[in-house]
Amino acid sequence: MAGDSHQLILMPSGRHGEIRHGTTVLDGARQLGIELESICGGRQTCGKCLVAPEYGKFAKHGITSDAAHLSPPTSTEQSYAQKQGLDLSQYRLACAACLEGDVLLQIPESSLARKQVVRKDAGELAVEVKPAMQMVYVEVPAAQLGGRADWPRLQSALAEQWHLHNLSLDSYLLPKLQAALRTEKGAVTVTVWQGSEVIRVEPGYVESLYGLAVDIGSTTVAGHLCDLRTGAVVATQTMMNPQVRFGEDLISRISYANDPQGMSRLHHAIMKALNDLAKDAAQAAGIKPNEITDLVLVGNTVMHHIVLDINPIEIGHLPFALATDEALDLHARDMGLKAVHEGARVHLLPCIAGYVGADNVAVLLAEYPALKPGVTLIVDIGTNAEILLCIRDSLSTRILSASSPTGPAFEGAQISHGQRAAAGAIERVRIDGHNIRYKVIGDERWSDELNPDESLRPTGICGSGIIEAIAELYTAGLIGSDGRFKPGAPHDSKHVRFNGKLGEIVLASGEETAAGQEILITQKDVRAIQLAKAALYSGVRLLMDRLNIQKVDDVRLAGAFGSYIDPLYALRLGLFPDCDLANVQSVGNAAGDGARIALVNVDQRQWIQQLVRDVEYVETAAEPQFQDYFVDALTIPHAIDSFPHLEEV
Amino acid sequence: MAGDSHQLILMPSGRHGEIRHGTTVLDGARQLGIELESICGGRQTCGKCLVAPEYGKFAKHGITSDAAHLSPPTSTEQSYAQKQGLDLSQYRLACAACLEGDVLLQIPESSLARKQVVRKDAGELAVEVKPAMQMVYVEVPAAQLGGRADWPRLQSALAEQWHLHNLSLDSYLLPKLQAALRTEKGAVTVTVWQGSEVIRVEPGYVESLYGLAVDIGSTTVAGHLCDLRTGAVVATQTMMNPQVRFGEDLISRISYANDPQGMSRLHHAIMKALNDLAKDAAQAAGIKPNEITDLVLVGNTVMHHIVLDINPIEIGHLPFALATDEALDLHARDMGLKAVHEGARVHLLPCIAGYVGADNVAVLLAEYPALKPGVTLIVDIGTNAEILLCIRDSLSTRILSASSPTGPAFEGAQISHGQRAAAGAIERVRIDGHNIRYKVIGDERWSDELNPDESLRPTGICGSGIIEAIAELYTAGLIGSDGRFKPGAPHDSKHVRFNGKLGEIVLASGEETAAGQEILITQKDVRAIQLAKAALYSGVRLLMDRLNIQKVDDVRLAGAFGSYIDPLYALRLGLFPDCDLANVQSVGNAAGDGARIALVNVDQRQWIQQLVRDVEYVETAAEPQFQDYFVDALTIPHAIDSFPHLEEV
Repeated sequence: MAGDSHQLILMPSGRHGEIRHGTTVLDGARQLGIELESICGGRQTCGKCLVAPEYGKFAKHGITSDAAHLSPPTSTEQSYAQKQGLDLSQYRLACAACLEGDVLLQIPESSLARKQVVRKDAGELAVEVKPAMQMVYVEVPAAQLGGRADWPRLQSALAEQWHLHNLSLDSYLLPKLQAALRTEKGAVTVTVWQGSEVIRVEPGYVESLYGLAVDIGSTTVAGHLCDLRTGAVVATQTMMNPQVRFGEDLISRISYANDPQGMSRLHHAIMKALNDLAKDAAQAAGIKPNEITDLVLVGNTVMHHIVLDINPIEIGHLPFALATDEALDLHARDMGLKAVHEGARVHLLPCIAGYVGADNVAVLLAEYPALKPGVTLIVDIGTNAEILLCIRDSLSTRILSASSPTGPAFEGAQISHGQRAAAGAIERVRIDGHNIRYKVIGDERWSDELNPDESLRPTGICGSGIIEAIAELYTAGLIGSDGRFKPGAPHDSKHVRFNGKLGEIVLASGEETAAGQEILITQKDVRAIQLAKAALYSGVRLLMDRLNIQKVDDVRLAGAFGSYIDPLYALRLGLFPDCDLANVQSVGNAAGDGARIALVNVDQRQWIQQLVRDVEYVETAAEPQFQDYFVDALTIPHAIDSFPHLEEV
Repeated sequence: MAGDSHQLILMPSGRHGEIRHGTTVLDGARQLGIELESICGGRQTCGKCLVAPEYGKFAKHGITSDAAHLSPPTSTEQSYAQKQGLDLSQYRLACAACLEGDVLLQIPESSLARKQVVRKDAGELAVEVKPAMQMVYVEVPAAQLGGRADWPRLQSALAEQWHLHNLSLDSYLLPKLQAALRTEKGAVTVTVWQGSEVIRVEPGYVESLYGLAVDIGSTTVAGHLCDLRTGAVVATQTMMNPQVRFGEDLISRISYANDPQGMSRLHHAIMKALNDLAKDAAQAAGIKPNEITDLVLVGNTVMHHIVLDINPIEIGHLPFALATDEALDLHARDMGLKAVHEGARVHLLPCIAGYVGADNVAVLLAEYPALKPGVTLIVDIGTNAEILLCIRDSLSTRILSASSPTGPAFEGAQISHGQRAAAGAIERVRIDGHNIRYKVIGDERWSDELNPDESLRPTGICGSGIIEAIAELYTAGLIGSDGRFKPGAPHDSKHVRFNGKLGEIVLASGEETAAGQEILITQKDVRAIQLAKAALYSGVRLLMDRLNIQKVDDVRLAGAFGSYIDPLYALRLGLFPDCDLANVQSVGNAAGDGARIALVNVDQRQWIQQLVRDVEYVETAAEPQFQDYFVDALTIPHAIDSFPHLEEV
């Protein structure tokens, strides 16, 4: 141990090394590769860099750590400690305490500059917190006669105190800089976007740094408000996409966009919703909406275009051309997002193809790191099914992407008594012997577990309910593998009826339902599900052909439908190729997770842009094989041998 | 002469060299360092690259040029010639004609890509036309199933066809790209800003490229509308600064800015004026205002700040701090300039100090190239006088800058019957024997040249008139070198009167004037001019001291006052140190010239930013020597020896 340097040991990482006598713990830790949080720039005022020295003999490390091995608390440190009720015998400010001997320190998680945020939905993946926005506190010298103007003085201060060079100034700040610099005598907290542009200047010392990640679905808009300093979600807010009143599915939105004023109405409806979402989320978290300085938006290509005020008309017909598929960095104010901070930025993830949007890219961003060796199928089922087929070996990962025109049947649309997966929807169905049982969303009981005077009062049937019903109908022998209701099948007397040649089954009688009308599954409904699942299955098969593989090892179901569906029934009906049931999992709102990852870590935005350009997009409609697979896949559970053809319904 | 290459001789430059057989004249000229105009990118459709081959024996060059030495006209070229009435025996398209033997060609000025624009006011200086905006015509392949989106396809086309790489897209274009690309089947003309950002996309082949250079004076706003392809001024428009109604001089504007809503009124008044100016100039030139895509704005620091919506309050008191003194590139739409193109950019030249603004930087930009060896004094007189003192030797040029608080007296403000230099203002005065003669702006005759029934009907006296009047009063012995009217001086009976101790002189009687009231110069007016000229002179002297020089070799007077004033009288009154009268010249609206130079040549914007940082600003008010010089300079014509003190008036 040299006389002019000492051992510094940082726990829990165990990093250690020789550090020069008199170095602050903050700088010493930096030399050992551990970046501690610091907003005040070592001024001993922000208290972000707290460390806990431990004293005693540490045989394993060969040192004795002692209180006297750190410089005594400074007066600034003492005044901070007094104000904050901090015990300086237990905690020291790393920017104040200097090494005067060997020391072993505990570094609390909260003092680490690059915190780890744990994804909630998937439960495993950790993402480094490295937002696009950086907040720094600077003290700018007062203006002097014959000296430089406010902005160059601020630039110099940022360069000298934070090594931030060649910064530009967001032009909206030009009229505001002067007052901000004079309110607290030149002391300001500056927010810098991507190390390149000053986007916020606030008088004095400020800590607030928030971002909003939004998944704009055709039906639902979901936002996560995150503290960008910690990565923590501080509020989650969901609302209906108000565009629903202009059309349920994407095609009807595209069509409405071309009505007079239709485009303008669609755009303004979603912008108002996003502003409301920001306000609601901020209120829920107890902050002001204008504390939000960064946003990440994802959505399918039609939502993506409408948010950008781009008419989606070209997506509605061949060759499904997008106006742009690149990642975008925009000003929130230019987009009409007035609720958030005036200097706030918006990042949109890239798109892949006409019907594979930024939401699917977000799914990939969320799921990619946890891909196991072998073949993983990721399916996000909405109005279309977006399919990602990934094959990973020790050397590389290859990703294929496709969109399959499933139509909205899986979402309960265009089904006689279909509805969205919401309270009151039948989501589970069992048919055994004479009995039909069901469960509705919002109640844990089966319909046959009720007392005679109780009722579940179903309002309709959602996608997962239809899937289960059809699989159960097939197992019970009420429909054939061609999907036709079998005349003269066992229980038809009670539940199955025929209108001429077309069968239907009563799931709930008029006495049971909320509206007092029967909830049926008709022959037409069975056909719609057959068509949807055939489209999905065929898309997956085509991608498998491209990779020349016969089976998938893992299946991940994303999105609302993916969260509700029972994987067993999805397999029984043949939505996707056979796979070990244990390896089929729902990954919830993976698009929202991906948006959140991009929000808290700016490197991930760069990385996914690179990755997306390597994704091999397969235009299923252009593949001659598609129709063969499609016709085969119409059978239930799936094609064992070729199937002649379906009766027209 | 190698069998596979030929001599190409380009006149009038005389550039020549061996060019490979089959090379187009366009490429051949490029290889010889002559860039020809081309918008269509060699498609033989724009006709910008016309060249005139000459045929015969050119002994001096040792070649025989022959029609057969160029490839025969292509069918595209023929169809262009037919449509445009072009004689292909006289002119060829350089992008179509290929070298098949020795050729001598005349290159018309209009075919040169970098045209020279000649300044009007100074009459000599030539500036290369190299605008910030570049227009290129591209053909973008149609969208394909599974292919890239519109914007990346446009990017690829720009990279392949024009070597424009890494372009970004102005975000306002996102919703417009799709339609622009589909109107003419992918044929678009793209305007690129500074080789980095696409700011306009128009269907088909378009040539229109206009810019507006504006000098925003406290009193007058003057704009030059330029064709950015040629550098030519196609319209010049001048209007009153509507802020005048909120205060005549800068101090009263600053004061008004701090009234409730004052700042907002000042800002909106000037933005409306700039929009109106753009519309008027466009109308005068027969174009639409939204054909203007680039603007350069200059103005004094207060105008500069108000245009940027920055409250000028800090300029109004020590230390006269600017919010920013750097050059700025902004979006016209963000500033509220709605009349011009939605993608138009605005460049503001940098400022030097609290009272040395972008207008003075423009003066420097205009005057710097023509500086002769020795010492040049450039004075721009408005409400303040901005002084540039330049010393050039064979190795370098050193520039000092100062602002002198002359007050508005030179502009006719705060003078009893003062007015701006406009029609009706007395601008020339002669006093000889018993007679006082004058001239008014708008009439070439002297007042004593009129018939008895005619009248000039003066409305007041402008700055140059006051200067002449005071110099003449001194020469005629009516005022002393201390500026006091002499009691009992010769012609007092007719023109000079005394109110107690204070003299005054009647320039025009009530019968002569437009308002029917006398136009006088009072003792107070003489004092105001003495103070103003003392301030100017002292500022110049201080800068001369810094350079340790005793005399200046050249004097250039800029601005409206500088255009009207007779240099002889300016010298006689001692506005600046002695200088050979032959070397005092008016350079007219040099600030406007500088703005125009920056508009047509983007390199000049870069260059002046560098230069300005080397300008040595001297804060005259901070120099102890200033007051000594000031008191000395109060005398008329100027300090021969120290002058005791002035009587209070």
